[in-house]
Amino acid sequence: MDLIESLQWRYATKKFNPEKSVSPEDLQTILEAGNLAATSYGLQPFQFVVVSDPDLRQQLVPFSYNQPQVGQASHVIVIAVRTDVDADFIRASAKLTEKKRGLEEGQLDGYAKQMIGAIMSMNDEQRIVWAQKQSYIVLANLMVACATLKIDSCPMEGFIPADYNRLLELDSKNLHASVVLPVGYRAEDDEQQSFAKVRKTLEEMTLNC
Amino acid sequence: MDLIESLQWRYATKKFNPEKSVSPEDLQTILEAGNLAATSYGLQPFQFVVVSDPDLRQQLVPFSYNQPQVGQASHVIVIAVRTDVDADFIRASAKLTEKKRGLEEGQLDGYAKQMIGAIMSMNDEQRIVWAQKQSYIVLANLMVACATLKIDSCPMEGFIPADYNRLLELDSKNLHASVVLPVGYRAEDDEQQSFAKVRKTLEEMTLNC
Repeated sequence: MDLIESLQWRYATKKFNPEKSVSPEDLQTILEAGNLAATSYGLQPFQFVVVSDPDLRQQLVPFSYNQPQVGQASHVIVIAVRTDVDADFIRASAKLTEKKRGLEEGQLDGYAKQMIGAIMSMNDEQRIVWAQKQSYIVLANLMVACATLKIDSCPMEGFIPADYNRLLELDSKNLHASVVLPVGYRAEDDEQQSFAKVRKTLEEMTLNC
Repeated sequence: MDLIESLQWRYATKKFNPEKSVSPEDLQTILEAGNLAATSYGLQPFQFVVVSDPDLRQQLVPFSYNQPQVGQASHVIVIAVRTDVDADFIRASAKLTEKKRGLEEGQLDGYAKQMIGAIMSMNDEQRIVWAQKQSYIVLANLMVACATLKIDSCPMEGFIPADYNRLLELDSKNLHASVVLPVGYRAEDDEQQSFAKVRKTLEEMTLNC
């Protein structure tokens, strides 16, 4: 199945089959695709929070405007952004690059300074928005990976971050829930799967210059 | 080549071969993948601005902190968010869904009202951020599509939106440049292609609950 077919196959699953689980191998592949997402300066200002415990998933339902998917799905992947991106965090990223690329220690100090200048010129709120934007690239990669594996998913912005943060103990880890992706297998009777995909045409969506 | 291999193959291309063009068929596939991206309520609050004219691409260089990629690449895809998302825009989206799914006229009026409530409760700035987040899902799909076609790309936040808006006449179309993706083919001597990809490990990036 090629990419376009996979993207056509994907839909925002409203009802999952709670009996079917995503295998550990497939989950690994999905997260790996997310981890390979491009992020600003390669800083990866996020964390995957994978909720597999059924009780915990059930407790997320009221914090998700009662959308049952988080309770039914095999796993709920919360992409949380880091609220502790600072000069040290950025320097650590440059150090990792030096190490992975066999560079001399300190070779990227100038580059780190440049990144710090760019990222730390934002105020806290702007920096959260910046990180959240990156988290949506990650989200997209997760969805594409799911679709290529014929695993269903449902991207969700409809949840209460403060309650997610509290229940999943994210605050104390300097994390903030950004966007949520239940993954699993569609229920046979999920009506949504038979609905035609709706998109404006590419002609309508494109300006050529 | 499977998805993970494609994502491993992808890198932020710093130097494109200005002699090699992306074919119209491939460009169509890339944009189609972007158009199939999930967006909040399926509202597609964005537009592709495809800049192929070489002079125009060259004029974008100084507005891109002199990054030469926008001048060298085959095409520069600007994902612009719509600044005119309002009740009428949302109602038109619901009408399109009714039509595409063979529903009765007015059947989605209640749903449209619900969407209007959610989207119009944001102030203008919040709504732009909301649309920008969606544009990053689109961006990711474009990058994945490029990689599966062995086409290079370079995601860019480093540009001056106001200057892009002016040069590409986006303001008058109620559009605002959100993120930029030059696409094309890498130059043989782009050093960057030989650098190891740097990522924290999946273990470091994941919390299990």
